[in-house]
Amino acid sequence: MEKRKPITVGEAVRKVMDVAGSGNKETVHINEAFGRRLAQDIISSHPVPPFDRSPYDGFAIRAEDSEAAGRDNPVTFRVAGEIGAGDVFEGELQEREAVRIMTGAQIPAGCDAIVMFELTAEHSEGGNKYMTIKRPFKSGDNISFKGEDTEAGKVLVQKGAFINPGVMAVLATFGYHEVEVAKKLAIGVFATGSELLDVHEELQPGKIRNSNAHMILAQIERAGAKPLYLGKLPDEFDLCLSAVEEALHKVDMLITTGGVSVGDYDLLPDIYKEIGADVLFNKVAMRPGSVTTVAQAGGKILFGLSGNPSACYVGFELFVRPVIYHRSFSTAQHLKKVEAELVEDFLKPNPFTRFVRSGLDYKDGFLRVDPSGFNKSNAVAVLACTDVLMMLPGGTRGFKKGDMVDVLLLDSQEGSEWPWD
Amino acid sequence: MEKRKPITVGEAVRKVMDVAGSGNKETVHINEAFGRRLAQDIISSHPVPPFDRSPYDGFAIRAEDSEAAGRDNPVTFRVAGEIGAGDVFEGELQEREAVRIMTGAQIPAGCDAIVMFELTAEHSEGGNKYMTIKRPFKSGDNISFKGEDTEAGKVLVQKGAFINPGVMAVLATFGYHEVEVAKKLAIGVFATGSELLDVHEELQPGKIRNSNAHMILAQIERAGAKPLYLGKLPDEFDLCLSAVEEALHKVDMLITTGGVSVGDYDLLPDIYKEIGADVLFNKVAMRPGSVTTVAQAGGKILFGLSGNPSACYVGFELFVRPVIYHRSFSTAQHLKKVEAELVEDFLKPNPFTRFVRSGLDYKDGFLRVDPSGFNKSNAVAVLACTDVLMMLPGGTRGFKKGDMVDVLLLDSQEGSEWPWD
Repeated sequence: MEKRKPITVGEAVRKVMDVAGSGNKETVHINEAFGRRLAQDIISSHPVPPFDRSPYDGFAIRAEDSEAAGRDNPVTFRVAGEIGAGDVFEGELQEREAVRIMTGAQIPAGCDAIVMFELTAEHSEGGNKYMTIKRPFKSGDNISFKGEDTEAGKVLVQKGAFINPGVMAVLATFGYHEVEVAKKLAIGVFATGSELLDVHEELQPGKIRNSNAHMILAQIERAGAKPLYLGKLPDEFDLCLSAVEEALHKVDMLITTGGVSVGDYDLLPDIYKEIGADVLFNKVAMRPGSVTTVAQAGGKILFGLSGNPSACYVGFELFVRPVIYHRSFSTAQHLKKVEAELVEDFLKPNPFTRFVRSGLDYKDGFLRVDPSGFNKSNAVAVLACTDVLMMLPGGTRGFKKGDMVDVLLLDSQEGSEWPWD
Repeated sequence: MEKRKPITVGEAVRKVMDVAGSGNKETVHINEAFGRRLAQDIISSHPVPPFDRSPYDGFAIRAEDSEAAGRDNPVTFRVAGEIGAGDVFEGELQEREAVRIMTGAQIPAGCDAIVMFELTAEHSEGGNKYMTIKRPFKSGDNISFKGEDTEAGKVLVQKGAFINPGVMAVLATFGYHEVEVAKKLAIGVFATGSELLDVHEELQPGKIRNSNAHMILAQIERAGAKPLYLGKLPDEFDLCLSAVEEALHKVDMLITTGGVSVGDYDLLPDIYKEIGADVLFNKVAMRPGSVTTVAQAGGKILFGLSGNPSACYVGFELFVRPVIYHRSFSTAQHLKKVEAELVEDFLKPNPFTRFVRSGLDYKDGFLRVDPSGFNKSNAVAVLACTDVLMMLPGGTRGFKKGDMVDVLLLDSQEGSEWPWD
C-alpha cells in the first residue's frame, strides 16, 4: 500500500495558493452588484455634500443681518423665496432677506447661515411673508459644507471588497450604475462512494445519504462562487475517467468528495495519474481531513476532499475558499482568525493540527469558544451549529478551560491574510 | 407646524413588533433551501451512524480470536471476504476469519472489532488470502456504533434557523429532499425627494443621486426578504396617493425613504392620513433617524424612513429587519447585541439614544469598537465599512476610551431576543 508523507497545513495552503491563478472581472448593472466582490476601486467622483447644503428645514440668511438679534430685540426678515430640496435659488438676497429652505437643499449664493424653523416666528403682511428671530447667528452656522463628509478623488472602497448595503449606497452616490465585479468561478462537484443514496431515497442497509454534495454546494455559494453539481462519479474506472475529463472542460475548478484514501475503492489517485495531473499533496498533518488531496491539471485545480462530512467541510474552508477569495481580488483570502477563550477542557492530545467545529459566544466583550459535542470527526449534526473552526496546534497534550485558542470565523465576509501563524 | 412627541427606541420597537403579524411558509426542494429560514423543526429520522460502521480501512474480526496475539505471537486470519462502503457482508465468520472492510462500511454480523490496515501484514497461499496481526483487540475497538453521533427522533435544527451549509448537510442526511421554509416577504421601496437623480444621471446643481433606494434594497435582501423597487414617488399629492395605494396591493410591507419630516415638501404624513393609516409613531428619541415613522394600513406596515442615508440605514435595521425575522419564524429577531470596548473617546453628549456606525475589531479575544469618522449623520462613505451599530444611551455626557459599550452586529444571521436592555 502506498505510503503517504503528510505536510503541514501551512505548507499545503501555500502550495494551493501558488497555483491559485488570477481572477477575471465582468461589468454588471448596479442592480446586480449586491453580494459580489469589487474588481475595481470605488472613487468619490465628487465631494459630499456636492454643494453647501442645509441640514435642517429653516431659513437661509446672511449672518451679518442677524448680529443685533436678541431676546429683547427681535429681528425680522422678509422671505424672498423658497427652495425645496433639488431646487436652486436664482436670485440674490438683499439686506434682511431670508429664503425658506428645506433639508438637503443647496444654500443660496450670498447666504452663510441657516436658522432652524423651530427658532423662527412667521407672519404675512401686504402679500409678503416675514420671519422673525430672537438670537444672532454666525457665519457658517448650520451649514453642511461642500466636501465635509468626503472629498473628491478618494478611494472609498477597495478592489476585492464584498459589496454590502453600505457599499451599494456608495456606488449609487457616485454614479456607478455599472460596476466591475469579480466573475464568479464555476466550481463542479462530484460525489464518490457506492454507499451514497440520493436525498429522496429510503435508507438501505449499509448505505447513507449523500450529505456532502449539498453541503459543499452551499459552501461554494457562501464563498461567492457558482456551484455546479455533476452527480456521483460512476464506479467503473473508464467511465469515471471520462466523466472527470469532460467536467474539466466545463468548470474553473473541480471538487470531488471521497475516493482519495489509499483504499481499494479509492479511484481518484489513479484518475489523477491517468489525466497527468500534478498532485500537490495527498496527505496533510491535520484532523479531520488528513487524506485531503489537491492536484492540478491543464491549469485547473482539482480538490479531492475527504468523504467524511466534517473533514470535507474543513477541507473546503481551508483550501478551496481562499482560492475563490483570491480570484475575487480579495487580499485577505483566508478565514478570519481571532482568539477566543476555551470554555471547557479539550484534552485530546494530537500530533496533528486539529480543527474542531465549534460554537462562538460573547460575554462581556470577550469571545468564548465552545467545542462541546463537536469533536467527533463523523458528526453531521454539529455542523449545523458550527460558527467557527477552533484551530489547535499539534504536538500538545490538549487544552484547558480558560486557555486562549485561535478560532477561524466561517460566516465573516472579511478574511485574514496569510500566514496565520 | 405640527409638534411631535418622541418615544423611546424600546417603545417604538415594541409598537412595531405588536403589529408584526405572522409568517407564511412554503415547501422548497433542498436545492433551493440554502440561505432560507426553516419553517419546521428538523428531526433525526434515524440514528447516525445508521448501523455499526468502520471508521477505517482495515479488517473486521471477532475480537476473541485476537486474544493471544502479541509481538512474539503473530496470529493469522483467513480473509473470508471483502466489503466496500455500501455493501453488506452476507456470510458468517468462523474462528480466525476476517473480512476486508472499507471506511464507512457496515460491520459484518458476528464481528466486534476493526483492525486498521496499517497494523496488518497480508499474504496469499493456495488461493486464499491471509492477514496477520501482532497485538490483541478488545470487543468494540475501532467501531463507530449505531447512533453514537446522533440518536433518532432528536430535534437537530429548530424552526426559524438560518439554513447554512451545515444545516444543508443535516437536511440531506435525514432525507429532507423537500423542506418547509419561511416564505420571503415582498417589500416595496419608494424613494421620495425631488432632489434625487437616478444613478446613471450626471450630477446637477442642488441635486444628489438616489443612494437610499439601492442601499435599502440590499438591506432587504441581506435580511432575507424580497425587495421590489417601485421608483420615486411623484411630487403631486394625488399621484403620490394612488401610487401608495396601488403599491399596497402588491407588497407585504412598504418602505419609503424621505418625506416624513414636518417640512412643506413632506407628503407622507398627509398620505398616511388620507389612506386611513394608523400612525404608530412619528418621532423616536434616537439619532440619527428621529423622524422615523411607522404606520399600519389594511394589515400592512408602512415604514417611513428618513431621507438621510445613515438614518435610513439605522431605521431599517432597528424596525424593519426584526419584522422580517419574526415572520421568518426566528425567535431572536433583533440585531445581535454584544459588548465591546470603545477604542477612542466619543464625547458628544446627547439627550437621545445614539446609533453610531462603527467598525468592529478583535484583539486578544476582546471585541473593540471604533467609531472614528463614523459620527456624521450624513456620511455615506462610512456605511461601506460599517460592521456594527454602536448603541449609546441618551442622557450621558459621552463616553471615554476604554468604556464598555453595546454594539449591534449587522452581518450576523443570529439575532438577539427582546428586550435588549
